[in-house]
Amino acid sequence: MSYTEIEYAVRDGIATITLNRPQRMNAYTWVMRGEMLDAFERVDADDDVRAVVVTGAGRAFCAGADLEGGGDTFNKDKSQDMFAGEGDVLEDGTPRDGGGTVALRIARCLKPVIGAFNGAAVGVGATVTLPMDIRIASEKARFGFVFARRGIVTEAASSWFLPRIVGISQAMEWAATGRVFDAAEALRGGLVSRVVAPGELLPAAYAIGREIADNTSAVSVAAIRRLMWSGLSSTTPWDAHAADSRLMAAFGAAPDAAEGIASFLEKRAAAFPMKVSSDLPEQVPDWPLR
Amino acid sequence: MSYTEIEYAVRDGIATITLNRPQRMNAYTWVMRGEMLDAFERVDADDDVRAVVVTGAGRAFCAGADLEGGGDTFNKDKSQDMFAGEGDVLEDGTPRDGGGTVALRIARCLKPVIGAFNGAAVGVGATVTLPMDIRIASEKARFGFVFARRGIVTEAASSWFLPRIVGISQAMEWAATGRVFDAAEALRGGLVSRVVAPGELLPAAYAIGREIADNTSAVSVAAIRRLMWSGLSSTTPWDAHAADSRLMAAFGAAPDAAEGIASFLEKRAAAFPMKVSSDLPEQVPDWPLR
Amino acid sequence: MSYTEIEYAVRDGIATITLNRPQRMNAYTWVMRGEMLDAFERVDADDDVRAVVVTGAGRAFCAGADLEGGGDTFNKDKSQDMFAGEGDVLEDGTPRDGGGTVALRIARCLKPVIGAFNGAAVGVGATVTLPMDIRIASEKARFGFVFARRGIVTEAASSWFLPRIVGISQAMEWAATGRVFDAAEALRGGLVSRVVAPGELLPAAYAIGREIADNTSAVSVAAIRRLMWSGLSSTTPWDAHAADSRLMAAFGAAPDAAEGIASFLEKRAAAFPMKVSSDLPEQVPDWPLR
Repeated sequence: MSYTEIEYAVRDGIATITLNRPQRMNAYTWVMRGEMLDAFERVDADDDVRAVVVTGAGRAFCAGADLEGGGDTFNKDKSQDMFAGEGDVLEDGTPRDGGGTVALRIARCLKPVIGAFNGAAVGVGATVTLPMDIRIASEKARFGFVFARRGIVTEAASSWFLPRIVGISQAMEWAATGRVFDAAEALRGGLVSRVVAPGELLPAAYAIGREIADNTSAVSVAAIRRLMWSGLSSTTPWDAHAADSRLMAAFGAAPDAAEGIASFLEKRAAAFPMKVSSDLPEQVPDWPLR
Repeated sequence: MSYTEIEYAVRDGIATITLNRPQRMNAYTWVMRGEMLDAFERVDADDDVRAVVVTGAGRAFCAGADLEGGGDTFNKDKSQDMFAGEGDVLEDGTPRDGGGTVALRIARCLKPVIGAFNGAAVGVGATVTLPMDIRIASEKARFGFVFARRGIVTEAASSWFLPRIVGISQAMEWAATGRVFDAAEALRGGLVSRVVAPGELLPAAYAIGREIADNTSAVSVAAIRRLMWSGLSSTTPWDAHAADSRLMAAFGAAPDAAEGIASFLEKRAAAFPMKVSSDLPEQVPDWPLR
Repeated sequence: MSYTEIEYAVRDGIATITLNRPQRMNAYTWVMRGEMLDAFERVDADDDVRAVVVTGAGRAFCAGADLEGGGDTFNKDKSQDMFAGEGDVLEDGTPRDGGGTVALRIARCLKPVIGAFNGAAVGVGATVTLPMDIRIASEKARFGFVFARRGIVTEAASSWFLPRIVGISQAMEWAATGRVFDAAEALRGGLVSRVVAPGELLPAAYAIGREIADNTSAVSVAAIRRLMWSGLSSTTPWDAHAADSRLMAAFGAAPDAAEGIASFLEKRAAAFPMKVSSDLPEQVPDWPLR
């Protein structure tokens, strides 16, 4: 698949997904949605990818839905931009919210995902980034959960993610006012963990990716990502304990653990042999998505 | 219904509920409980109300249970102050905790609720405010989850709300020590989002209300409030995604979305036509309260 | 039971559990695991214990698994250090993760638990402390969720606890990079609530314990601890409300409530008569651990 609205590149173990409609501030479309879903399949299948950075081309990250089509943009009977494809429906036949299909795909990714906000991230351009593990921003970034100003609702499963990331009070303040806010407010509110000068944004994102790629077992990181996010979804720690026990039994006897201990005792860099594509233990949990 | 222990007023789209027993530091009683429940019914029914501010008359916000009755204040067989009315019981016949009936009512409110702490908020005076969306404090406010110092337990469903708002460690520190703490500690701990000079408290609360009333669709905000709080209650993001999909299908084809997009493209203020009292889509979720 | 790898002492109402293998940086073993489980039984049974402080002897808190045994340390068929004892298995026969047995025991403790980090807390040495109520650190402490660098996974139910304590983004950053970080980063990230000079660490921990022991009802604190942690586990606030209602009915008519009110009205210190060992109301919830 070749892409028209995103770019995809892998270098030194890190994939970069660039939203790429700079003439429209990378506004989200049905095409971009499909390309993002495809790109995350490539990320999971490629053992050369240890981490993912998502950013935007030009001066915006993603301006949200493309409103060029006017007042029917959000109308499922007249526009497909905000919904999933034909046949991709809830059990009652309701078309699935399109932003949610991307968000839930990112949530299941087997590699850590870092959002690097170079500019405006508004509406679905903000909500689809919530299942990314880490978000960092340029000083020029701004954010808006503007749905109430457009007469619609928070989507992309953001009512699940946002209160768990920034707390229910901050989530409600941003969502009920619909205000657009700057990177400093995003940092104070916990939406991003770091704000840097524009020229330092991608280097900072890649540095986190490097720290992962250079030091850790790929199958460990994949299992941990699934454990952590499903831990956030499970009701009691007993569920986590059961999953841990199964994974410790599987991982403890596998080659990466032997190498992890040996390299530590020998004070050298580890060379982990296991691959996500072929060696991921079956005990790694998937998301309880339905 | 006319009130004797609270005041209720609506101006410029914002309702103000004032706890009004200043001679007893607005201590909470069974009467105040019933009046608060009634006031939130009015809030939801009145389309002129876009947001709610709750504050206290005089120098306290609410000093907690009125202990004038002495050692039997919390004894359900001898005092009704802390419990719900006759017949309002759990399935096993246990009288429902009265503070919890107010807290759960506020949680279901269709309009955003802003707590404005002018002075002491102690015991039930602190816990019933936890389901409010935003809390801001005067420099003179203080707070205490003092239950362990009175030989009772945290109530008003605060064991659900408080750890989700301030984190389990901060919640346990405040609840296990029962200490009374000042506004600065409340801010550091995340219980309030802002501390202002006493004279700036109500203006700051009204400014947030204005930002909501002047810019957003009332039905959008009602739906978002329900989505966010039930998102915090649901186990997996799939539930949020299903709710989103139904609401995006309903809202996307409704008049407020058309006006939201048109006003944005025309760079003018929106005039949203839909009303909460008559136009709230049936897909808006209620709380899973039982 | 006399201990060989921990120390246990009670003074002035506060128990101190000291991890005590300083020659091995208090590295965690199967013996230490059993002694910790036993110590928490003593804590719960002893009415003279109102709070618990856990710390380490020498310069480390707990360096994690003892890797002296080499590459098979995490292999359940060749080493028992990381797993529960014979017969202590999941329903499918998987041996339970040993760190998780300690973490879940601490989560159920009837007394508040304060972690006092004097030095390095790495791997299981960090994860077992997550169900403690309060964590404070010496400036010399450092932390690491290093599992991905050893080729294994986060354990001790930390995928449930850690995202709820520090947020999913911070949890994933620490777990995916496996980095070792200092006390300042732990404070910024919310893993500890305070950082103090080394000589002030135990005094600060004991001061929190004192505040609890000197001012509160022991049965109230036990019930509140269970309410808060199970509140974090329950899906909706209705569950908390039902538990509150039962506990308010039980506590409100009991002697500690009468003393709590009387001492407050008489402006004197309270002398609560009820004991956890004999007077804990049956309505106090246990954890829904299976």
